[in-house]
Amino acid sequence: MSSSFGRIFRISTFGESHCRSVGVVVDGVPPRMSLSAADIQIQLDRRRPGGNKLGTERNEADQVQILSGIENGLTLGTPIGMLVNNKDQRPGDYGSMSQVPRPSHADYTYQMKYGIHASSGGGRSSARETIGRVAAGAIAEKYLLEEYGIEIVAWVSSVGNHDSDNVDMETLTRVQVDDNEIRCPDPHAAEKMTAEIVAAREAKDSIGGVVSCVCRNLPAGLGEPVFDRLEAKLAHAMLSLPATKGFEIGSGFSGARMRGSLHNDPFVKKGDRLGTITNNSGGVQGGISNGESVYFRVAFKPPATIGQAQQTVDYSGVETTLEAKGRHDPCVVPRAVPIVETMAALVLVDLALIQKTRI
Amino acid sequence: MSSSFGRIFRISTFGESHCRSVGVVVDGVPPRMSLSAADIQIQLDRRRPGGNKLGTERNEADQVQILSGIENGLTLGTPIGMLVNNKDQRPGDYGSMSQVPRPSHADYTYQMKYGIHASSGGGRSSARETIGRVAAGAIAEKYLLEEYGIEIVAWVSSVGNHDSDNVDMETLTRVQVDDNEIRCPDPHAAEKMTAEIVAAREAKDSIGGVVSCVCRNLPAGLGEPVFDRLEAKLAHAMLSLPATKGFEIGSGFSGARMRGSLHNDPFVKKGDRLGTITNNSGGVQGGISNGESVYFRVAFKPPATIGQAQQTVDYSGVETTLEAKGRHDPCVVPRAVPIVETMAALVLVDLALIQKTRI
Amino acid sequence: MSSSFGRIFRISTFGESHCRSVGVVVDGVPPRMSLSAADIQIQLDRRRPGGNKLGTERNEADQVQILSGIENGLTLGTPIGMLVNNKDQRPGDYGSMSQVPRPSHADYTYQMKYGIHASSGGGRSSARETIGRVAAGAIAEKYLLEEYGIEIVAWVSSVGNHDSDNVDMETLTRVQVDDNEIRCPDPHAAEKMTAEIVAAREAKDSIGGVVSCVCRNLPAGLGEPVFDRLEAKLAHAMLSLPATKGFEIGSGFSGARMRGSLHNDPFVKKGDRLGTITNNSGGVQGGISNGESVYFRVAFKPPATIGQAQQTVDYSGVETTLEAKGRHDPCVVPRAVPIVETMAALVLVDLALIQKTRI
Amino acid sequence: MSSSFGRIFRISTFGESHCRSVGVVVDGVPPRMSLSAADIQIQLDRRRPGGNKLGTERNEADQVQILSGIENGLTLGTPIGMLVNNKDQRPGDYGSMSQVPRPSHADYTYQMKYGIHASSGGGRSSARETIGRVAAGAIAEKYLLEEYGIEIVAWVSSVGNHDSDNVDMETLTRVQVDDNEIRCPDPHAAEKMTAEIVAAREAKDSIGGVVSCVCRNLPAGLGEPVFDRLEAKLAHAMLSLPATKGFEIGSGFSGARMRGSLHNDPFVKKGDRLGTITNNSGGVQGGISNGESVYFRVAFKPPATIGQAQQTVDYSGVETTLEAKGRHDPCVVPRAVPIVETMAALVLVDLALIQKTRI
Repeated sequence: MSSSFGRIFRISTFGESHCRSVGVVVDGVPPRMSLSAADIQIQLDRRRPGGNKLGTERNEADQVQILSGIENGLTLGTPIGMLVNNKDQRPGDYGSMSQVPRPSHADYTYQMKYGIHASSGGGRSSARETIGRVAAGAIAEKYLLEEYGIEIVAWVSSVGNHDSDNVDMETLTRVQVDDNEIRCPDPHAAEKMTAEIVAAREAKDSIGGVVSCVCRNLPAGLGEPVFDRLEAKLAHAMLSLPATKGFEIGSGFSGARMRGSLHNDPFVKKGDRLGTITNNSGGVQGGISNGESVYFRVAFKPPATIGQAQQTVDYSGVETTLEAKGRHDPCVVPRAVPIVETMAALVLVDLALIQKTRI
Repeated sequence: MSSSFGRIFRISTFGESHCRSVGVVVDGVPPRMSLSAADIQIQLDRRRPGGNKLGTERNEADQVQILSGIENGLTLGTPIGMLVNNKDQRPGDYGSMSQVPRPSHADYTYQMKYGIHASSGGGRSSARETIGRVAAGAIAEKYLLEEYGIEIVAWVSSVGNHDSDNVDMETLTRVQVDDNEIRCPDPHAAEKMTAEIVAAREAKDSIGGVVSCVCRNLPAGLGEPVFDRLEAKLAHAMLSLPATKGFEIGSGFSGARMRGSLHNDPFVKKGDRLGTITNNSGGVQGGISNGESVYFRVAFKPPATIGQAQQTVDYSGVETTLEAKGRHDPCVVPRAVPIVETMAALVLVDLALIQKTRI
Repeated sequence: MSSSFGRIFRISTFGESHCRSVGVVVDGVPPRMSLSAADIQIQLDRRRPGGNKLGTERNEADQVQILSGIENGLTLGTPIGMLVNNKDQRPGDYGSMSQVPRPSHADYTYQMKYGIHASSGGGRSSARETIGRVAAGAIAEKYLLEEYGIEIVAWVSSVGNHDSDNVDMETLTRVQVDDNEIRCPDPHAAEKMTAEIVAAREAKDSIGGVVSCVCRNLPAGLGEPVFDRLEAKLAHAMLSLPATKGFEIGSGFSGARMRGSLHNDPFVKKGDRLGTITNNSGGVQGGISNGESVYFRVAFKPPATIGQAQQTVDYSGVETTLEAKGRHDPCVVPRAVPIVETMAALVLVDLALIQKTRI
Repeated sequence: MSSSFGRIFRISTFGESHCRSVGVVVDGVPPRMSLSAADIQIQLDRRRPGGNKLGTERNEADQVQILSGIENGLTLGTPIGMLVNNKDQRPGDYGSMSQVPRPSHADYTYQMKYGIHASSGGGRSSARETIGRVAAGAIAEKYLLEEYGIEIVAWVSSVGNHDSDNVDMETLTRVQVDDNEIRCPDPHAAEKMTAEIVAAREAKDSIGGVVSCVCRNLPAGLGEPVFDRLEAKLAHAMLSLPATKGFEIGSGFSGARMRGSLHNDPFVKKGDRLGTITNNSGGVQGGISNGESVYFRVAFKPPATIGQAQQTVDYSGVETTLEAKGRHDPCVVPRAVPIVETMAALVLVDLALIQKTRI
């Protein structure tokens, strides 16, 4: 259980890396929205590996099929079922790994939890699971944009020790982000990041990174004290993604080093609302959006599956050496960009709909 | 809504800073547990301010009353209602702040969300809200200890720029943590942290910090892919606490700088189970506990309410200067220690009970 | 677990028959509602036994205490905690029954479920559990009346074989219902019902009955296909009450004997909306309110605890005779009237708030 | 929203009458169960119309496709996605009804709720929506049978004024039920029921009926006081089915006419457990199963869509005559039999899994 997320706009995903299809049921989509497969496909295409030299080269067409909930291009308010067929429904290269749990992968823990695990690939822990999320998120962000003007843009802010710089969160667009394969809008940093990923691949190794995200034009009032504070739901959403190790909002961990007199964001009049001069809060106070931009960072560890030989043990505890076959993504952060946007959209749409019950 | 947390072991908290009582209803407590008010009071006393020179000096007795769910010292399996009366049910010092939303406090966002906000103190965003959580968490951790031997220990790992060092997570005890007022088991660092807090107080300012936490002796198998992964629920739980800005598990943000060959935790035989040599994963792989210690860090910003004069605007946008009256906690991390433990316990007990449905 | 009901307007009740207090936490109450203890007390007083010769004679003052969520007579949008102290916190007359599970009572099943059960009274299956519900329901119905003009009126429509007649659902008021102790607005039937209850009491026996309920002025559109259809939530709510055995809406079981041409409710123009000429549907079509009055009936079995000697066995299976001591209510339906109204209000308020997310 | 049901074994259905596919995602299926499409297809075939002269004659192949969650014939513990394609994805006969809401059908209320409704057929209120439920229920009942020996058998107990008689709930099998097309195991009554349905069809009319159901071999202890009592969840489940108007368990409405001395079920020793001599309780006391058979009845109204001319109004309120074209089922109860079993299984499996958290 727990393949569902959201209370009002609620998604339920299904699918492993090598089963027939992966997909999602989205319940609570507002009725009368204009919606087509093309709206969904845009983010699925951004998520898909293979189009660039940095990701894996498995060719996944990933064409979405909409099964229900839409008629004549309009949502009915009923559940929208969507699926993407897995091309590769038969495992191949993974055979040798079935006796040996991959270090820092989910093989061992799935086996301990369920007493069984998918014989190949990542099963449910595979990145293919995120397809259903992204399809649902595309609906969410379309609604947020049309209803509130909310814009969500994520980008790669670090790979290894290379950090992006000079990113203006208030104007950044997805077009700018997608301008290079690394999805880092700082071209100078992007170059170094690319080199880092290529070096990792050549060393049959992998490398971690950080995705940053900004959500603009939120109305004040989103977030449900006390357990579903906006930052709590964002943290929940981001840490539910594979390979994540950390989340920070606004000043984050660096805020923990500051004094209040410096950290506090003084109020100021902005047009007909109150705004703040600085934004160490990251757009959230007391768990509720304040109308300023919400921004946060998500840490991704280096992918666990690497081609290098690793000393480890098999399920029975016998020492062995593991060398992953096949092609594996040396760094997930470029592909994680639309997925982070997706999870942000799913959090925001749910909180926005819940807030309607207060008015 | 959203004052509930957990699916099987489910808590619902209530209460503002100056209402009659704060408290909690805990549903799904396993039956036949030995439980008394004393079991609860221990953590409430650790949470209570006033016993040390660093916290606020409001004297809150905070004696828990158990209203239901226990008979002859045993839980009945029915909801346990608990409350703590607020001594200070009439606001006093806060009057001058009612026209001016405190910078980086929840006054403004509550007003925007609900169209009304508690006229004084922090209302529902006050730290007093956590009393219900801590009372519930004391039950959770008693169950976890008795049923699985799980130990949860949190400590202050930084205040401002002062970091603790030399902390052995595998042996650390609460007694060691409580050995000094700052709750930092590194005495040398504790001294510097104390000085930092005193300095902030004297400057009518506040200072942020980080609480670290370790959970030992977890069985493998806890955590619900994909949306209720163990780290996702921990992140959700921690970011639901007032004043939090970040969460990281295992290697965290530093893991995002590493290569996979270094980050991966190779398996090794440990007695009759598999363990890992290193623990960059923080005890979690694929969202499921692997039997190693789970550890994580939580960033707390400096408290928003400070005595220094702040330039800001009132609700109507007119510029004004705000100086908070009354005594306010210059640093929340020492008191946050038992609260972080509480939230960890609430996450783990719920996942442990859910895992029983798999067996 | 499962002491919570509702998704947006969500209540969590606690308390056994002889613990310190029974009560409720109500989350999701709309902010800025005018609300006082007196608003709550009205329905608690209607629910209370002892004011009439037909109910039990235990004198329960049942004064509600509001613990949180209200300031200066207005709701804050935060959880409202409420409790009523149990006067009788020490069991007395029940001692002899502790070795023998009462036939058709919950003693045996609670023991089988939890491995323990409250040593006296009904524990959590006692009618006192409904106090928390009624307190919450009073808030719900105040909101429904003020926001939509919704009126909810229940009455006793049968006791044993005596049925009420001549009840005009479209105009019936609570004042009319409360005009006699039996709460049957048909005075002729009320007389016979009273005699039936007195006869049952004198025979140390008990008698069943039916409560009917009408909800007027609902807007069209309430009810959530497919699993939370309006009638499904009402059925759920009503069968969650102690001693209930059946539920029917509109034509109910008699509708199962009809032909469609007779059962269908043709549409007609009513002012600026469509209405129906007949109302066999009971105000619901496809699980959604259609703007006509919603009406339904709830069957209550005769109370299980009776003074007559019963042949049964004790927990170990040894045959014995059981004679309940103490005073027990020979018929629950008069007191059930406000409780049925409560559950209807809790269903409607939740569906009304959810419907706001569609607009 | 609200296309999900269950807390641990949780289903999420999707699909309208004329969209691409209908289906379900089932989360929380216990891992390591043997499961194949054939296990699902059995109940889908029993549900399918067309095989007999009483139902509609639309030929729906309704072959299930399993998309995920199973590998090598074993469940993985991950979500099982399933779908059935709609053959008839283009509406035909319904065109004339698009301006006129069918009396007692869901056209009008869907329009009022969502501001839009599927232009043809029943949309989400169509019986095709139940396909996803039945597919999920087949998994649930396989688990219940294998794990506990639980048997669930439903049958038609009345059509119009014709009631079945002589049905032995303790031994009845599905083979016996399916022995005639009406699914009434009393052959004499079945004949009269068949004649009644044929007569209704010839009159271009429809007729209501009642489905009864028994669940045998339940362990004592299932059911979650107070809001998720076993009978409350059953009532919720049954009233979530299209065309239902009533539910009763055990003695039901007739129990409301009885005295306690007659209604109570005295305990008796049955092997190594306690049982009851009579079973007016319907296997449930205090909301929890007591180990006796659970039995209940569900009232279905006559189908709303009839060929007879009906005087009604169109959406704008103009009077008109409506004659439904196409072939419509004159009585739903024979087909409802496996659907009632499905919903019972979904309730029981969820409560059985939750009960594991108590042990």
